[in-house]
Order: sequence, then structure tokens, then C-alpha cells
Amino acid sequence: MSDLKSKFLEVYSVLKSELLNDPAFDFTDDSRLWVERMLDYNVPGGKLNRGLSVIDSFKLLKEGKEPTDEEIFLACVLGWCIEWLQAYFLVPDDIMDSSHTRRGQPCWFRLPKVGMIAVNDGLILRNHIPRILKKHFKGKPYYVDLLDLFNEVEFQTASGQMIDLITTLVGEKDLSKYSLPLHHRIVQYKTAYYSFYLPVACALVMSGENLDNHVDVKNILVEMGTYFQVQDDYLDCFGDPKFIGKIGTDIEDFKCSWLVVKALELANDEQKKLLHENYGKEDPECVAKVKKLYETLNLQDVFGEYERQSHGKLIKAIEGHSNKAVQFVLKSFLEKIYQRQK
Amino acid sequence: MSDLKSKFLEVYSVLKSELLNDPAFDFTDDSRLWVERMLDYNVPGGKLNRGLSVIDSFKLLKEGKEPTDEEIFLACVLGWCIEWLQAYFLVPDDIMDSSHTRRGQPCWFRLPKVGMIAVNDGLILRNHIPRILKKHFKGKPYYVDLLDLFNEVEFQTASGQMIDLITTLVGEKDLSKYSLPLHHRIVQYKTAYYSFYLPVACALVMSGENLDNHVDVKNILVEMGTYFQVQDDYLDCFGDPKFIGKIGTDIEDFKCSWLVVKALELANDEQKKLLHENYGKEDPECVAKVKKLYETLNLQDVFGEYERQSHGKLIKAIEGHSNKAVQFVLKSFLEKIYQRQK
Repeated sequence: MSDLKSKFLEVYSVLKSELLNDPAFDFTDDSRLWVERMLDYNVPGGKLNRGLSVIDSFKLLKEGKEPTDEEIFLACVLGWCIEWLQAYFLVPDDIMDSSHTRRGQPCWFRLPKVGMIAVNDGLILRNHIPRILKKHFKGKPYYVDLLDLFNEVEFQTASGQMIDLITTLVGEKDLSKYSLPLHHRIVQYKTAYYSFYLPVACALVMSGENLDNHVDVKNILVEMGTYFQVQDDYLDCFGDPKFIGKIGTDIEDFKCSWLVVKALELANDEQKKLLHENYGKEDPECVAKVKKLYETLNLQDVFGEYERQSHGKLIKAIEGHSNKAVQFVLKSFLEKIYQRQK
Repeated sequence: MSDLKSKFLEVYSVLKSELLNDPAFDFTDDSRLWVERMLDYNVPGGKLNRGLSVIDSFKLLKEGKEPTDEEIFLACVLGWCIEWLQAYFLVPDDIMDSSHTRRGQPCWFRLPKVGMIAVNDGLILRNHIPRILKKHFKGKPYYVDLLDLFNEVEFQTASGQMIDLITTLVGEKDLSKYSLPLHHRIVQYKTAYYSFYLPVACALVMSGENLDNHVDVKNILVEMGTYFQVQDDYLDCFGDPKFIGKIGTDIEDFKCSWLVVKALELANDEQKKLLHENYGKEDPECVAKVKKLYETLNLQDVFGEYERQSHGKLIKAIEGHSNKAVQFVLKSFLEKIYQRQK
């Protein structure tokens, strides 16, 4: 494990211990144990990319000046706030999607003693974020900006989740609702803001920047997040399960994936009919027919072209940015994901 | 309808329209309609006591000086934030309790097209609060205090809900876990902070007060909230269904009610055994046995005595407060609930 990651994990223990002794709530032994178990189960088990990138971004923004221990600690704290936010979204998402596993273990609500209490645990996770921010940032000139930032990004993510839910779940499965603009909108709000914009925005706020002056950075990161999700959709079908660690089920799950949206755009009437008849079915024969059609439509090449074009556009946008340090931050993000296989 | 209430309801329409046109999210027609329907179904249908009392309290704090139209409007906005907070708690609570009706209509998640999307709708409701606060209070010197206040009270309420859930739902029904301190703790956190303290705290913040100087007001209101919930528990069993508008089911539902806690305290071994055997059963004979025992133990008189004592203590605490206007606010709250029959 890298030094940074082990430092980051140490900060998790500090935050957890503070939350378990928060004077705003008079814990019983049972409830303290419950929260501890719930946090350990749901917060630190992911790849931690979002959290770690707050620290990476903050360092780059210092332009070679060594950050102090306190600065590193605070960047870790903000990184954990994003991981907490992620956990807060995943716990109810798994309930709404009736998922079974998450990060290689049963979903929290699937544990026999948990069940629907998980809904409230999601709210507890959410409430921890302002507790953490207050404990470590109250009194800083940018405290209110952090509150506003997390509130705005949380609102956008919940709104993205809403359009995803009402298009995918309400009423009958209706493929004709799926389109590229809808796909873009869901991805932008549900994923890109909190996964790509938020880590960099946290680093900018900590560096004393006013986010109103960085709308261009937001736009670039949201586009990068969209590109990332298109990769995700592609890998779900065409990635190597050995690399990506799971077998994709977007076709069975009737997901509004970039692939199906692109296929609908390129298909003739007969191929559209095939899609309507076979998309979103559990039957492996139906799934195979859809995959075959994706291949007939050359979606691998279409994706390759999309990837090259997106990369080119993003590089151009980044190089047009006036601040070199910000350019480094954005390029380091982009390099991490370009042509990824997992 | 009173003038105040109709003014208050007008402000709801303003806030709703702002939220449906929030530039932070690019609504589709479907999602805008969904949110509108969800708000109308869940936010304004209650008694609105919590929201209205922000305005009442604010007026009393002005000590006879006429509030401006803008002040009244802002007090209404804060009142609605509390009603939004209430809706945000009730939507997931009904899911967790498998409830069927709420405010005389089916619970939101029971509607056929809603189901588990209601979990996310709860999050949307929650996210509206900081959107409303930002729109109307950003730039005011007390903006950050409002954010901190709502965050703290939300945290306490979710924590109260957690201890209620883990005592009532986890594992077997175990009456021996119920005690007066546990009852007090659940009520304090789950109900009293947001129903009693929050409205007055909002009015104090709007009046330019620092809440750190009003810990005594908080303590008095939390005690008043506890007293209110004990009344609620009492009326659930001994109130007139004609007045309270529903038939209580706390005994069937194995609720940690003040009555059962008091009964456990007063019962001899044989009576305790009866409680353990009959509490939390659907069977009307079991329910009747529990009610009979409550009567044998004279719980009506015990409650009457509790009510008198609480009232006396609260009056004494209020009259000990240094500020006359604050005294008026607290007394007006207490008078509204003392010896209520519904």
C-alpha cells in the first residue's frame, strides 16, 4: 500500500472515533456499536479513488510547495467526506435496485439484522458529512463554501438518480425513451459531479479559490466524468471480466447504457425491432442477440472513435486553461482514465 | 382559514415554483412533473404547526414592533424548511415501519408507480432544504448559522430514529430493553429537537440571536417536546378516537411507549409476566389484557400527576428566563399543548 493510502486510512480511524463520540448525540452502547459496524462495512471498502484525488489535486495546486501536515490532514478529511457521500448514495441505491452484492460482499441491507434500517443508516452517513466539516473546518474562511459545495453536488446527484429511476423503473420497459441526450443527462448528474468535479472542487476551495471563477474546470470535469461512464458502459459488455472484476449485466437490467443508445441511433428498423424484443431480458439467448447486434453495428469501433475524439476535445479544453497548475490537475485525472481496461 | 395560514400556503407555492426551476438541475418534463406531484403529496398536507410556530415565535420576539413583509416572508420560508424536513423524515419512516396510511391517504411509497423510488424522493426532499436556504438567505450574516442549525437537528433526529429502530426492530421483541431513560432519549432526539426546538431556534436566528447563548431555551423546549410525546403516548391508549382522529395501535406495535415503560416500573412480578406475554401481539384479547393492567396500575392518575408536575417545572424554568419576549414565546408554546385532548 502506498504511503498516501495508509495515511488516508489512518484519517478514517480518526474521523470514525470523533463521530462515535460526537457530543451532539448521547449514544447508547448499542447505537455506538451499530454505527461503528455500519461505517466499517460501508465507507472504507471501495477503491478510494475519489477521496485520494482530493489530496493529489491539492498537492498539484501547491505548484511544488510542500504542503504542511495540517494541510494534508485536511485534504484527507475532505477526501473522506466524498467517500462518505458515496457510501450514503450506495446504501439506498442497492435497496432501490434490489442488488445483492457490493464491493465483493452482500449489500448492507441484505444482512439479516439490518434490512430496512439501512434506509436510516444512509441518512446517518449523510449526516456525518456536515458533522465532519463542522469539526474540522468551522472558522475557516471557506467553511460556508464547503457546505454549499457538498449541498449542491448532493442535490445534483440525487436529481440524476431520480431521472435514472423514473426512466428505468416507472411503468413498462420502454426502450424508445432512451436517447443520447437522456444518457448524457443521467451520467452528468448521477456520476460526474460527485466523482469528478467534487474532488477537484474541494482541493480548489482548500487552496482559497472561489469556485465561481472555475466554471470552466467544472465543465471539463463533467465531460471527463461522462467519458468515464461511457467507458464503464462499454466495459460492462466488451471488457474482460478478469480485469473488471465482475460480469456485466447492463443488457439484462435494461440499463440506459451508452451502447444501447448508440445502437438505437445506428440501427435500421429491423435491428431496432430486435433490440426492442430482446433488451432487458434475463434469457441468455436474448442477451446474445443484443451483443451480436452491437458487433454487427461495429460498436467497438464506434466506441474507439468516441474515445479518441473525447480525449482530443478534453486535451484541447485543458490546454486552453489559463492556469498551469489547474492544467496539471486536469491532465493527471485524464491520464488515469484514458483507454483504461478496468 | 386564518390569514396567517393562507399567507403561509402562498409561500409554499413560491418555493415549489423556485425548486421546479432550480438552475442547478436541468429538469426533463417528466422529472419536473414527478417532483411537483411528490411535493404536493408529501409536504403541505399536515397540521403545519411546526412551520407556523416559526412565524408566531418571530412575531413575539419583535416585542410589539410590527414585522416587515419581508421578515414575514422569510419566517414563512424557514417554517416551510421545517415542514420539508418533516416530510423528508416521514417518507422513509413509513417505508421502514411498513405503514399504510399517513395524513388520511396512502403512504407515498404505497402508490403503484412510486414504490422504492420513494427512498430517493426522501433524499430529494432533504436536498431541497439547503436549496431554499441558499436562495433566500445566502448573504445574510446568519446564513451559516441556519445551515449549521438544520444540519445539527437533522443529525439528532436521524440518530433518535436509529435508537428507536435498533431497539424496536433488531432481533426478538424484548420488553426488558424498555426503560424510562431509553424512552426519554428516543423522544428527545427523534421528536423534540425538530418539532419544538427548531421552530424557536429559527426565529431566534432570524432575530439576530446567537444560539450558543440560548442553551437554556433549548433545554426547556426539549423538555416540552418530551412532555408532548408522553401525552401522545397516553392519548394513543386513553384518548378519544373521535378527537385524535385515529385508533391507537402502540400496544400491538410493540412501541416503546411511556405507558408500557411506566407499567414495567410499577408492576409486580406477576404483572410484569402478563406484560411480557401480551405486549406487541395483534390479538385483541392480548391488547385488552394490557389495557386492563394499565388501569389496574392507575396509569391515568400517574399520567395526570406527571402532567401537573411537568407543567409546574416548565413554568418555573420559563419564568426563570431573563428575557421577557423569550418567556412569551415559550409560554405560548406550552399553553398550546397543556392538557390537550388531541
